[in-house]
Amino acid sequence: MNLPEIAKLGHVALVTPDLTKSLWFFKDVLGLEETEVVDGTVYLRAWGDFEHHTLSITAGDRAYVDHIGWKAKRQEDVEGFAKLLEAAGTQVKWVEAGEEAGQGRAIRFKLPSQHCFEIYFEMTKPFAEDSTRSVLKNQRHKSWRQGVSPRRIDHVNILTSMDAKVITDYLAKQLGFKMREYIKAPDDSLVAGWMSVTNLVHDVAVSSDPTSPTTNQIHHMSYWLDNGQDILRAADILSEHGIKFKGPGKHGISQAMYIYVVDPGSGLRVELFTGSYLIFEPDWEPVEWGLEDMDVGFTYWGDQMDMDPDNNPTIEA
Amino acid sequence: MNLPEIAKLGHVALVTPDLTKSLWFFKDVLGLEETEVVDGTVYLRAWGDFEHHTLSITAGDRAYVDHIGWKAKRQEDVEGFAKLLEAAGTQVKWVEAGEEAGQGRAIRFKLPSQHCFEIYFEMTKPFAEDSTRSVLKNQRHKSWRQGVSPRRIDHVNILTSMDAKVITDYLAKQLGFKMREYIKAPDDSLVAGWMSVTNLVHDVAVSSDPTSPTTNQIHHMSYWLDNGQDILRAADILSEHGIKFKGPGKHGISQAMYIYVVDPGSGLRVELFTGSYLIFEPDWEPVEWGLEDMDVGFTYWGDQMDMDPDNNPTIEA
Amino acid sequence: MNLPEIAKLGHVALVTPDLTKSLWFFKDVLGLEETEVVDGTVYLRAWGDFEHHTLSITAGDRAYVDHIGWKAKRQEDVEGFAKLLEAAGTQVKWVEAGEEAGQGRAIRFKLPSQHCFEIYFEMTKPFAEDSTRSVLKNQRHKSWRQGVSPRRIDHVNILTSMDAKVITDYLAKQLGFKMREYIKAPDDSLVAGWMSVTNLVHDVAVSSDPTSPTTNQIHHMSYWLDNGQDILRAADILSEHGIKFKGPGKHGISQAMYIYVVDPGSGLRVELFTGSYLIFEPDWEPVEWGLEDMDVGFTYWGDQMDMDPDNNPTIEA
Amino acid sequence: MNLPEIAKLGHVALVTPDLTKSLWFFKDVLGLEETEVVDGTVYLRAWGDFEHHTLSITAGDRAYVDHIGWKAKRQEDVEGFAKLLEAAGTQVKWVEAGEEAGQGRAIRFKLPSQHCFEIYFEMTKPFAEDSTRSVLKNQRHKSWRQGVSPRRIDHVNILTSMDAKVITDYLAKQLGFKMREYIKAPDDSLVAGWMSVTNLVHDVAVSSDPTSPTTNQIHHMSYWLDNGQDILRAADILSEHGIKFKGPGKHGISQAMYIYVVDPGSGLRVELFTGSYLIFEPDWEPVEWGLEDMDVGFTYWGDQMDMDPDNNPTIEA
Repeated sequence: MNLPEIAKLGHVALVTPDLTKSLWFFKDVLGLEETEVVDGTVYLRAWGDFEHHTLSITAGDRAYVDHIGWKAKRQEDVEGFAKLLEAAGTQVKWVEAGEEAGQGRAIRFKLPSQHCFEIYFEMTKPFAEDSTRSVLKNQRHKSWRQGVSPRRIDHVNILTSMDAKVITDYLAKQLGFKMREYIKAPDDSLVAGWMSVTNLVHDVAVSSDPTSPTTNQIHHMSYWLDNGQDILRAADILSEHGIKFKGPGKHGISQAMYIYVVDPGSGLRVELFTGSYLIFEPDWEPVEWGLEDMDVGFTYWGDQMDMDPDNNPTIEA
Repeated sequence: MNLPEIAKLGHVALVTPDLTKSLWFFKDVLGLEETEVVDGTVYLRAWGDFEHHTLSITAGDRAYVDHIGWKAKRQEDVEGFAKLLEAAGTQVKWVEAGEEAGQGRAIRFKLPSQHCFEIYFEMTKPFAEDSTRSVLKNQRHKSWRQGVSPRRIDHVNILTSMDAKVITDYLAKQLGFKMREYIKAPDDSLVAGWMSVTNLVHDVAVSSDPTSPTTNQIHHMSYWLDNGQDILRAADILSEHGIKFKGPGKHGISQAMYIYVVDPGSGLRVELFTGSYLIFEPDWEPVEWGLEDMDVGFTYWGDQMDMDPDNNPTIEA
Repeated sequence: MNLPEIAKLGHVALVTPDLTKSLWFFKDVLGLEETEVVDGTVYLRAWGDFEHHTLSITAGDRAYVDHIGWKAKRQEDVEGFAKLLEAAGTQVKWVEAGEEAGQGRAIRFKLPSQHCFEIYFEMTKPFAEDSTRSVLKNQRHKSWRQGVSPRRIDHVNILTSMDAKVITDYLAKQLGFKMREYIKAPDDSLVAGWMSVTNLVHDVAVSSDPTSPTTNQIHHMSYWLDNGQDILRAADILSEHGIKFKGPGKHGISQAMYIYVVDPGSGLRVELFTGSYLIFEPDWEPVEWGLEDMDVGFTYWGDQMDMDPDNNPTIEA
Repeated sequence: MNLPEIAKLGHVALVTPDLTKSLWFFKDVLGLEETEVVDGTVYLRAWGDFEHHTLSITAGDRAYVDHIGWKAKRQEDVEGFAKLLEAAGTQVKWVEAGEEAGQGRAIRFKLPSQHCFEIYFEMTKPFAEDSTRSVLKNQRHKSWRQGVSPRRIDHVNILTSMDAKVITDYLAKQLGFKMREYIKAPDDSLVAGWMSVTNLVHDVAVSSDPTSPTTNQIHHMSYWLDNGQDILRAADILSEHGIKFKGPGKHGISQAMYIYVVDPGSGLRVELFTGSYLIFEPDWEPVEWGLEDMDVGFTYWGDQMDMDPDNNPTIEA
C-alpha cells in the first residue's frame, strides 16, 4: 500500500464574532461566491475554485480558525492518515460525511502547535446556478462579478511561539510536505519555512515568533489573483471601501507579489497573492535565506509587512 | 517498488537548417539565455528555468525536433521506464551522461506515432554568471534582460495524422499522463487531448489531423509569460522585429491566453502562453468538449489560430 | 475677440429601438453609471467622467445618433460659433438650457455630411450619491463597481459615403480640429483622417466608404480604459455575457489597443480603447499613411476589424 | 496679437559630477535612447518622445539642473515671452540656435525662486537610425529595447523654501499655467500646487518646505510608463540592478501610480509615473486638499514617499 498523501489545501473554517462584517468583507469587497448556507455556516469559494468551498464562515463568540482542511490524494488516504497519525500518538477525531456541507467523511487532529488540521477526500464540485455559471466548461462561476474577484485559494501561513522546526518536521514526516524555501537564524534555528505538496512554492508556511500570544496563531490565509494588475485593481477597490492594507509589495522568498488586508469582522488576515513560481523539480534543493538576506528575501520591494505581532494581531487557529 | 513517474517536461532538442536565424529568434527576439555551447549545439533556457537547458539548437540539413526531454521523478525511474517500455515492446536507446550537455544517463524511445521522447533524471541547475545572475536566490538569471523574456518552458503540442487516442492511451498507460481536457468528435473519436503529470492543465497536448503530412509532427512548443500584459508587450516586440504571428487570443480549453509565432530559421512554432489554471484535484474529471463547443472552447476570443496544416506548416518531431 | 474654440468631446445622444437591451449593455455589461433619468432619457457617464453625461439613451422607432455634443472653451464661444457657422451658410438651431438635462444653452447644426453636432458650454459636474461616490476628491464615482468599467469617453468615429476631405476640411476650418494622422488613397483622396482639439491623437475620426448606406453614419463611439490588461478583462466579461466582438488588437495609426463591440439594442458600435499616445507638439506634422502601409497602420497586430459595411452595419448620426 | 503661450514641457538639462554613473542609470537601467553627443553633452529621450531630447546630461563639478526647457506654442511666442518677462522685471538671456543641440533660438530666465527656465520653439524631431527606428510611422524608436523603457517625459516637480504661492502665481500670470489641484495649509498658505498648460493634471508641480536647503531645488523629474504592470516590471529591473527606490504606490492627488528612484550619479530623483487622469474641461475648478486629507491625497496606497528633505536630499535647479 502506498503511503497516504495530501493533494492540496482545501479550505479554511473561520469563526467570526461579527458575521455581517465578515460577509461584507469576503463577499462584497473580496467578491467570493456563496455556494450555500447550512445551519448558519456560510460556504464560500472563489470563481475559479472547483470544490464546494474554500472558506466557511460561522458566527461565534470570538474569532478563530476552527480548522484548516486538506484534501487527500485517494479516498483510502483519509483512513491511512488516521492510522499513521494515531500510531504516532496524535489524537484523531472523525467527522462524519455531511457534518461539513459538501464534504465526505474526514478526520481532524492537532499539530504539536495545536493548530487544527482536517483531512478529507470527498467534496462536491457544484456548478454555479445558471445565471452566474461560466460559459466555460472548466470554470464554475463567471469571473469578475464583483469586488476584487480572486481566482482561487492559494495557501495558509501559520504562526507559532514554538520552535518552527518542530512543526515543519511534523508536516514533513507525518503529512509529506516538502521544504521549498526557509529562513535560518544565526543560531541555526528555523525562523520560517515554506512547504508544499503541489507545484506551488508553498501550500503552507510556518513562521515562528517567540512573542506570539500562543503556539497556534494563523498569520494569514491567501487567495490567488492572476496578475499584478489585478493586485493594483484590488488596492483601488479596498481603498474605495475605506479599508487600509499593507502592500503592494513583492517578497523575494517565493517571488510573490502581495497585499495583506484584514477582515474587519474577524481579524483574519488575507493575503491577495500573485506572481511566484512553480517547482516541478523532484530534486529541488530548499533555498536557504539568512537574516542578512532579508532586505531582498522578505521585502524585495514595496510597502513592507510589519511582522511585529503587537502591530499585526493574529487570530488563533 | 513504485512505478516510475515523469516529473515534468524538460526540454526540446531542435535541429534547424538556419542556425543564425534560429538563434536570432530565440535569443534576440524571445530573449532566451544561453547556458553554453557544446559541440556546436547551443543550450538555452528562460530566466526562470532552473535546469541547464529547456531548448537546444543544432544546425542540420532540415528542420526537426530530435527529441522531447522529460525529467523522471527519481534517479531509478530512468531504468524503471526502460524496463517497462521494453516489456511493452518499445525499443529503448540509452544516451550516456554528458552526451547531452548538463544531463546524466537517459533513454530515448519513440511513441507509436514515431515522436521521439527522452527520459532523464540528472541535469545540472547552473546559476548564471555573476553579471547576469539574479539577486534572488531562487532565480537563475535576471529577468527582463532582452526581448520578450518569458519565464519558463511550459508544454509541447504534438500533432499526428494517426488516431490521437492511440497516443494519449500510450501516454496514459506507459508514462502516467492524466487526461485533463479533450475534444470528442461526433463519431466519439478523439480530436485532441490535453494531458499532464503536474498541476498544469497540460504538459503535453496531442492533436489529430488526418491531413497532417506525417504521424509525428510537432504543432508547437510553449514558453510561459507571467501575465497578459507581457503577451501584449511581446506582440509589440515581435511586430517591431517584423515578425507576423497569430493572436493574441484566449482558448476556452485550458483558459490560456496565447500568441503563436514561428521561428523563421526552423519553422518551429512557439506558443507564448499565460493565464490558464492549475489542477490540484486528484479526482479531476476530464472536461469534455464537443465540436459544437469550439466557438468557446477553441477560440474564446481574439485572433484565431488557423489549424489547417496547409496554412500552418509544422515540422517533424 | 478670440475665435471660438472647441475644448472637448462631450457626449453622444443615442436613440435606440430597444431601450431595455441598450441599458443592459451600457449599464450592466459596460458598467456605465446613471446620473439621472429625465423625460424617459437615461443619462450615463463613466466613473472618471466629470460632466453630467457622456452618453444619453432615449427610446425611439429606429436606432440613430441624435447628435454628438462638443464642449466649447468659453461661454461666449457658443454664440461665437453660431455666428461663424451661420455666416458660412450652416443652419443653426438653438437648444434652450435644460432641454438636455444638466446642460446650458447650446446650438445644433449639421455637417455637410448631415451628421448632427451640438456645441454647449455649461454642463453640471455632479458628484455621485454618497454610497457610490469616490473617496478621491478628483473622481466622481467609485471605480470598478460593475462590468467593464471604462474610465471616460474618448472619441467618435464618423463614416460617410462622401469624400472624407469635405468633412475634415469643414472640421478644420469651421471648428478648429487639427489633423493628426491620415490615410491617403493612391489618387491622393483622403480615405480617413484622425483629428483633435485636445492632446489626444483624435477626438474625432472621419472615414469614407463609397458603399456606406448614407453620408451620415457613425462608425463607433469610444470609451477609454486605463490599460491593456483592462481590455483583456473586458474580453472575458463580454464573453461571459455571450457577446461577440472584434479584437483585441492594436492599430498602428494612433497606436491604440482596441475591442469593438456592438450594443445589441441599437447597433451602435463601441470601441473599448487604451494605449495610444498624446500630442503636445504645436508644430505637429500630420502622419501620412498609404494603403500600402495598412498591414502595420490599420491592424498592427491582433484580431482585425472588418471594415466592409456589409459585415459591419453602422447606424446614422 | 495673441498672448504668448507654453505648449509643453520640453526637457531637463542635468549636470552631474559622475557622468558614467548617470549614463548607466539613464541609458542602461531606465533605457533612454541617445540622440547624439555634442561637446560632451549627452542628449537623451524616451522611445515615444518626438523632439531631439527630453534630458541632456553634462559632466560638472556638482549636481544641478541647469535649466528646465519649455516649448512655446508659436515661433513668435519666444520673442513674446521675452518682452513680457522683461516688462515684468525678469532678466532674460538669449540662447542662440544650436547652442543646445537640435534647438532653435531660446530664452532663459529665473523664477522668483531662482529656478532657471528656458523657452524655445524650434526643436528637431529626428527619427532613430534604421536599426532602432520603429516600424510605426508615428513613433521615433522601437519600444522595449532595454531597461525600464518609459514612453515619454511627463513633468517636473520643483521644491522651494519660499512660499509656494509666489511661484504658482508667477507661473499662472507670466506663463499661463492653470492650477489643477493644490494642498492648502490650515493657515490658508499653499503647501503644494499641480499646474498644467496641457490636458495633463500637471506639467509642473511646486512644493514648499521651509527646511529645504535653498529656494530652488528640484524634487524630481518624471517619465511616463503606459501602465501599472510596467511600473511593477520597473520595480523588478531596478531591484535586479541593486537600486533601492520608494514605491510602488498611488497618489490620490493626480491619481498617479509611482516609483521614485534616484540617479546614483547626480542625486536627481526620477518619478516613474503612470495612471493619472486628463483634464479636458476648460472650466475646471482646482481640487482643494487639506492636510487632513493627506491620508488619501498624498499616499492613497502603497509604499510612501518620505517628504522630509533630510531623508530625501534634492538637487538645485
